[in-house]
Amino acid sequence: MQIIVLGSAAGGGFPQWNSACPVGERAWAGDPAAAWRNQCSLAVSADGERWTLLNAAPEVRHQILAIPALHPQKRPRHSPIASVVLTNGDIDHVAGLLTLRESQPFRLHATSAILDVLAANPIFNALNPDFVERCAFALEDVVEVGDGVTIRPFAVPGKVALYMEGDAVDIGAETEDTIGLEIEDQGGGRFFFVPGCAAVTSALAQRLRGAPLLFFDGTLWTDDEMFKG
Amino acid sequence: MQIIVLGSAAGGGFPQWNSACPVGERAWAGDPAAAWRNQCSLAVSADGERWTLLNAAPEVRHQILAIPALHPQKRPRHSPIASVVLTNGDIDHVAGLLTLRESQPFRLHATSAILDVLAANPIFNALNPDFVERCAFALEDVVEVGDGVTIRPFAVPGKVALYMEGDAVDIGAETEDTIGLEIEDQGGGRFFFVPGCAAVTSALAQRLRGAPLLFFDGTLWTDDEMFKG
Repeated sequence: MQIIVLGSAAGGGFPQWNSACPVGERAWAGDPAAAWRNQCSLAVSADGERWTLLNAAPEVRHQILAIPALHPQKRPRHSPIASVVLTNGDIDHVAGLLTLRESQPFRLHATSAILDVLAANPIFNALNPDFVERCAFALEDVVEVGDGVTIRPFAVPGKVALYMEGDAVDIGAETEDTIGLEIEDQGGGRFFFVPGCAAVTSALAQRLRGAPLLFFDGTLWTDDEMFKG
Repeated sequence: MQIIVLGSAAGGGFPQWNSACPVGERAWAGDPAAAWRNQCSLAVSADGERWTLLNAAPEVRHQILAIPALHPQKRPRHSPIASVVLTNGDIDHVAGLLTLRESQPFRLHATSAILDVLAANPIFNALNPDFVERCAFALEDVVEVGDGVTIRPFAVPGKVALYMEGDAVDIGAETEDTIGLEIEDQGGGRFFFVPGCAAVTSALAQRLRGAPLLFFDGTLWTDDEMFKG
C-alpha cells in the first residue's frame, strides 16, 4: 500500500490566512523551521494507479499539482483519483470537493450524516450525480473503496461541522458526524487515520493499540507528548 | 490605485485537475509556454494597505501566500483584505470565501441575487456574521468598498451559477446573477472588470469604449481576436 501525505495541517492550513501569532510570523517570513503546510489529506493506493483521497482539502488542486501520481494520465480527461472518503463535514475536509468537478467519475464515501451535510448545500451539486456516486457507509462496516483497498469507519469523539452548529453543541459525542478509519490492503498492510478527535477514550485506545501506523490529530504542547501518551 | 492579478484562469484553473488535453499535457509537464495559472481574482487598493478582493478563488490561501501585501501585518490576527466583491455565484468566484474564516472582519459586497445563493448554502455560515457583513448593492449604484475605492456594478449577459441551474437555463440574461464592475479611486484611476460575460452587446461595448483598462473573460481562438474585437 502506498500512502502520500498531501497535507498535515489543521483547518486553515499553516499559516492560517490571517494569523500573525509568533509562530505564524515565522512562517510568513519563510523561516524553514516553520514550513508552510497544506490542510490534512492523504492519498492511498494499493497499485499506484488508482488512488483514494482521505478528505478533500480546499487546496486539493495545488496538492494534485505537486504529486505526479495524481496527474491525469489519459486524454482528454482522466484522474487517478477513483474515490474520496470523508471523515467529517468540516470545511478543511470537504471544500476540495468543489474542485473535483468537470464531470469526472469517482465515488464519494461517507456516513449518511456527512452526506446529509453535503445535500443541505446545493453548491455541492457541482459534483454531477451522473458522474459522482455518493455512497453511504455504516459505522464498523468494511467498505471496498478502491482496487484492493478497504476501510472500516468508526465513531470517535467529535462534533458536527462548525458551520452546522446550533446553539447547543455536543462536543465529544460519538456519532456518524466525526469518524476515524482503519485502512487495509489485500497484502495485510494496515493503518489508522483519525484526523479529528476530541478525546481518547479507553475504547479508542484499545482499538488503536498495536497499530503499525497511526495518523492522528494532534494539538500538542510538548514535543514528547505523543510518545508519553 | 494598485491592482494585483491573483489569478487569470477560468473555472478550475490551468491546468484543470483532470484535463489532459494537448495544452493541459504541456502544463502538467512543466512547459514554460503553458504556465500554471490560478483562478481569476484581482486585489485592488488605493493606499497599498487596505485591499479589496474582486472574487474569492478556491485557491485564495495560496494567492495570499504569494503576495506579501496580503499577509497579516499585526499580531495576533489581521488581514489587509478589508472587503470582497463578488461578480457572480460560480464556484471559482465564491469557494475562496470558505477560506476567509477565522472570525476576521471584512465586508462582503454582492447583489441580492448572489447573496441569496450564499444564503442557500449553510456552509457559508463559516463566515461568522458577527465579523463579516454581507452588503447588498443595486445595479448601477456607486458603492464605497474600501478606503477610497468605489465600484459601479452593472449587469452583463450571463446566467445563474452552474450548480444552481434548473432544467431551463437562460444563458445571456442580463440580471443580477452576473455582473461587471467599474472600479475607481479618488485620483481618477479607473478600470473595468468583466470576468464572465456571455456576449458583448452594443450597450456593453458602448460602456467599455475608451476605458483606460479592461479585464475581460476571454475564450479566444486566435491571438489577435481581442485586438480586432
